[in-house]
Amino acid sequence: MSTIEECPFCNPEDRVLIQNDLAQAFLSNPKITTGHFLITPKRHVEKPWELTNDEILNIFALINIVEQKLIETMAEGCDVRQNYKPFLKQNRVKVDHIHYHVIPRSNEDHLFQVSEKFGNQLWEEVSQKERTRFAELFK
Amino acid sequence: MSTIEECPFCNPEDRVLIQNDLAQAFLSNPKITTGHFLITPKRHVEKPWELTNDEILNIFALINIVEQKLIETMAEGCDVRQNYKPFLKQNRVKVDHIHYHVIPRSNEDHLFQVSEKFGNQLWEEVSQKERTRFAELFK
Repeated sequence: MSTIEECPFCNPEDRVLIQNDLAQAFLSNPKITTGHFLITPKRHVEKPWELTNDEILNIFALINIVEQKLIETMAEGCDVRQNYKPFLKQNRVKVDHIHYHVIPRSNEDHLFQVSEKFGNQLWEEVSQKERTRFAELFK
Repeated sequence: MSTIEECPFCNPEDRVLIQNDLAQAFLSNPKITTGHFLITPKRHVEKPWELTNDEILNIFALINIVEQKLIETMAEGCDVRQNYKPFLKQNRVKVDHIHYHVIPRSNEDHLFQVSEKFGNQLWEEVSQKERTRFAELFK
């Protein structure tokens, strides 16, 4: 939880490249790859489930514009990521104000080589016990 | 592009644990961690920008329910990821029907140790040249 006065996404200054009524898009800085964008609501929201429907639609209107422009000009695909990690303290690469990363992707790109390919070993089957556990949880 | 007849998310059968008019949620199988969920529109959509506003809101209504339930019962946080990678062919862990991953997260969890921590080295500053390039692109 940071105060709105010191929140970098409440005070994006001249970073904003595209916006609508309730959301804004700018380059992530630092970035994990060229063309890495962040889309945020203008309002200071931290918990994903506290976004209003209008904010969600404004955010996705910008995500769609950014994704299509990146795919037209420099990428074969895009990832969208929103990480809600209240267990990490805000710092230069972790901002509490909710934000959606749009990350240009191409086949076996640098992000894949450096990090993502190691995650492939994580995939495993869901057990019958887990099935039952989660069916109970959402009953 | 797969046909709707053979698409596993058009035909989720008894996997669905929670649903609303336009979207559905079920356990990812295979999964990358326990409690890894997928939320999809019921309609076969592949390109993110082809979702209707109603589909986006139905998908996020389910994402919000799943996230809050996971955080209440087993996780400290959650990631939401939507990967649009048309350059990969559909297989057991890559399905063309658009889907949002909800992944329970905790501090320095297995996913972080195995893969994500290696991505930390990717963060770098945006150059003035990049700023100008993307400002031009979105003018």
